[in-house]
Amino acid sequence: MKSKITFIPHSICAPIGFTSSAVAANIRKSGKLDLGLICSQVPAVAAGVFTKNKVKAAPLVLTKKNIKDGLLQAIIINSGNANACTGKVGDLHAKQMIAKVAEGLNIDANLVGVASTGVIGVTMPIDKITNKIPSLVDSLSADANNKTAHAIMTTDTFVKEAAVEIQLNNSSIRIGGIAKGSGMIHPNMATMLAFVTTDADIEHKVLKDALRNATNQSFNMISVDGDSSTNDMVLVMANKMAKNTPIKSLNSEDGKIFYAGLVELMILLAKKIAQDGEGATKLIEVTVIGAKSPKQAKNVAKSVVSSTLVKAAIFGNDANWGRIACAVGYADNQINPNKMQISLGNLKLFANGLPLAFSEEDALNLLQQKTVNINIDLCLGNSHSMAWGCDLSYDYVKINAAYRT
Amino acid sequence: MKSKITFIPHSICAPIGFTSSAVAANIRKSGKLDLGLICSQVPAVAAGVFTKNKVKAAPLVLTKKNIKDGLLQAIIINSGNANACTGKVGDLHAKQMIAKVAEGLNIDANLVGVASTGVIGVTMPIDKITNKIPSLVDSLSADANNKTAHAIMTTDTFVKEAAVEIQLNNSSIRIGGIAKGSGMIHPNMATMLAFVTTDADIEHKVLKDALRNATNQSFNMISVDGDSSTNDMVLVMANKMAKNTPIKSLNSEDGKIFYAGLVELMILLAKKIAQDGEGATKLIEVTVIGAKSPKQAKNVAKSVVSSTLVKAAIFGNDANWGRIACAVGYADNQINPNKMQISLGNLKLFANGLPLAFSEEDALNLLQQKTVNINIDLCLGNSHSMAWGCDLSYDYVKINAAYRT
Repeated sequence: MKSKITFIPHSICAPIGFTSSAVAANIRKSGKLDLGLICSQVPAVAAGVFTKNKVKAAPLVLTKKNIKDGLLQAIIINSGNANACTGKVGDLHAKQMIAKVAEGLNIDANLVGVASTGVIGVTMPIDKITNKIPSLVDSLSADANNKTAHAIMTTDTFVKEAAVEIQLNNSSIRIGGIAKGSGMIHPNMATMLAFVTTDADIEHKVLKDALRNATNQSFNMISVDGDSSTNDMVLVMANKMAKNTPIKSLNSEDGKIFYAGLVELMILLAKKIAQDGEGATKLIEVTVIGAKSPKQAKNVAKSVVSSTLVKAAIFGNDANWGRIACAVGYADNQINPNKMQISLGNLKLFANGLPLAFSEEDALNLLQQKTVNINIDLCLGNSHSMAWGCDLSYDYVKINAAYRT
Repeated sequence: MKSKITFIPHSICAPIGFTSSAVAANIRKSGKLDLGLICSQVPAVAAGVFTKNKVKAAPLVLTKKNIKDGLLQAIIINSGNANACTGKVGDLHAKQMIAKVAEGLNIDANLVGVASTGVIGVTMPIDKITNKIPSLVDSLSADANNKTAHAIMTTDTFVKEAAVEIQLNNSSIRIGGIAKGSGMIHPNMATMLAFVTTDADIEHKVLKDALRNATNQSFNMISVDGDSSTNDMVLVMANKMAKNTPIKSLNSEDGKIFYAGLVELMILLAKKIAQDGEGATKLIEVTVIGAKSPKQAKNVAKSVVSSTLVKAAIFGNDANWGRIACAVGYADNQINPNKMQISLGNLKLFANGLPLAFSEEDALNLLQQKTVNINIDLCLGNSHSMAWGCDLSYDYVKINAAYRT
């Protein structure tokens, strides 16, 4: 199936019928693009995945409500203020953002989603935002994807966007996406936003399942620091404009190809988020094979990629298999430490309950790469999983010791 | 009951009939005390709590076996090498340590426990150790507690020891303890050792229950970095030499007083471990009240004290209630963010779903103390819990990026 997926430019604007825009509304910092809009020419089938944190931001609650009927046509996103813990006035502000976009686009307010990211507990500078919405609507264009990707960034150091073209049986469809992450990134989607567009014709229930499964394989398998936030969401809009034969099941041939493309795109965005974790100098990719069950594979991969001791060791170029073995050992009850194997790339460090002699030079060479691969074979079954994270550096502490003040 | 508990000197040697000793066996570093022995004049009723990590070190497996019949008379402990992931030769070395102590003391090998802490995956320099055991036995004394507490330290920066005298109905008894922690400290007892002695006469089952409950309230409520290790254990020996009326239930009057003393001692040791977390500059004490259940209270307290974002904020003197609210929000499904209250000491930061205006100067003053108190009222019920941790500093990263190499 891989050969049917091609990476193409323009991310969220790559699918037919999608435009986007961005402006600087001076929400927190002067001059930075901080307000973005994504728009489909026609109402799109839509699905979302939302934070599990019980403290939920106002825009999230509202978007969840609007997406219930399975349709969205536009999404407005701001950075600089999370509109979380802002009480009733926060709800009102989220509604005002939606109303103003609906008015500008001349569509029903129920077709608009809203997302916010930034500081918590500060009332939104709502006038600054609503005043800019008309020019945001006016500047919608099919090549503003990169500006919109910039507008949703907070402490991110680079934009995260991608698009793929996928060959179905009798037509081609496109999927595009942008994301922001950095800090507080963790399984269960901590402080991250992602927006995915596609021109595929796909049934609502199928799209929902595809998004949930793909999120579990991508954004829920990344970890920067273990905290999950109030504002996380992933939204997808499918506007049917590719006019493909409707996808009615993920098990159909077209369904499988669509899912393969979606998950590849989302994993790419997730890896970019992990790579851009606060203070990160390296991407850590953990691959677990030989697990008894998918759940065991996932728990082990997450445990290793989330271990602050492993993360600090990778930062320090230390092939510390002991910490990896530890993180495997507390991830699951059914681990057999005398069976498992731990490797750094292809360099075996540990097998049969014992450390192996290895070349420290080879290890150092592997640890100095931009991506460090930790491979674990539990030797218990046939399930596998992958997780991504980053190393723990001085800069992580520096950034987070001084974020609010 | 509080008035019946008095702190006294000599820690593990404070109870009648206990002696200890320590020598430098040059296990890893030259000249550092790294081998310790704790000994009771007579066989003592004993209980233990052990790591839940599936990767278990050899000494732990052996001690677990020896303690099964409920009796121990001596415990040998080394630092500098964990004897973990060392295969069959590791089992043999742990057995040799026990055999040599049993020989020196002229007691049954089943009465000896063994504990190790230090690097993982390196074969023990067993001859260095066994050669020193005779002089370790010869130097047993009732005032060597501090030396023994030193011998079990690894990256700890200060010794952790304490003892209490407790007035029961018709006699007084003593409980003493030493502990080591630092790094990898977490709920579920990561890389920590604690040894508790008492001259109380207490039934085996009652002692076991007391130790398990007290561990859940103390060592299992501390967190430095979320990793749990291969070697953790807490052991208690009760040698009956105080000749008190035997304690047959934790619900009896004496049972309650004994437990109060034990838990106070163990919480004190746990706090010292948290305070000495790698790179720590402050102790964080999280108190949760108003929870629906003890489990909810515990989950919330642990979640807040384990949040790396909260820890980094405390290091940076930042009264970042948003991160605290976040960590509460992902700890439990039943949280009502619109009810909960968050305070720093007595300074209220958040209530009714909204941030409160507070003096940044007062907050800074509270954050610059050696102990930072975070108080959370969930306003849902009557259960409460406490947890302890430390801030996340540059030095944590520094220490852990370079530990093995």
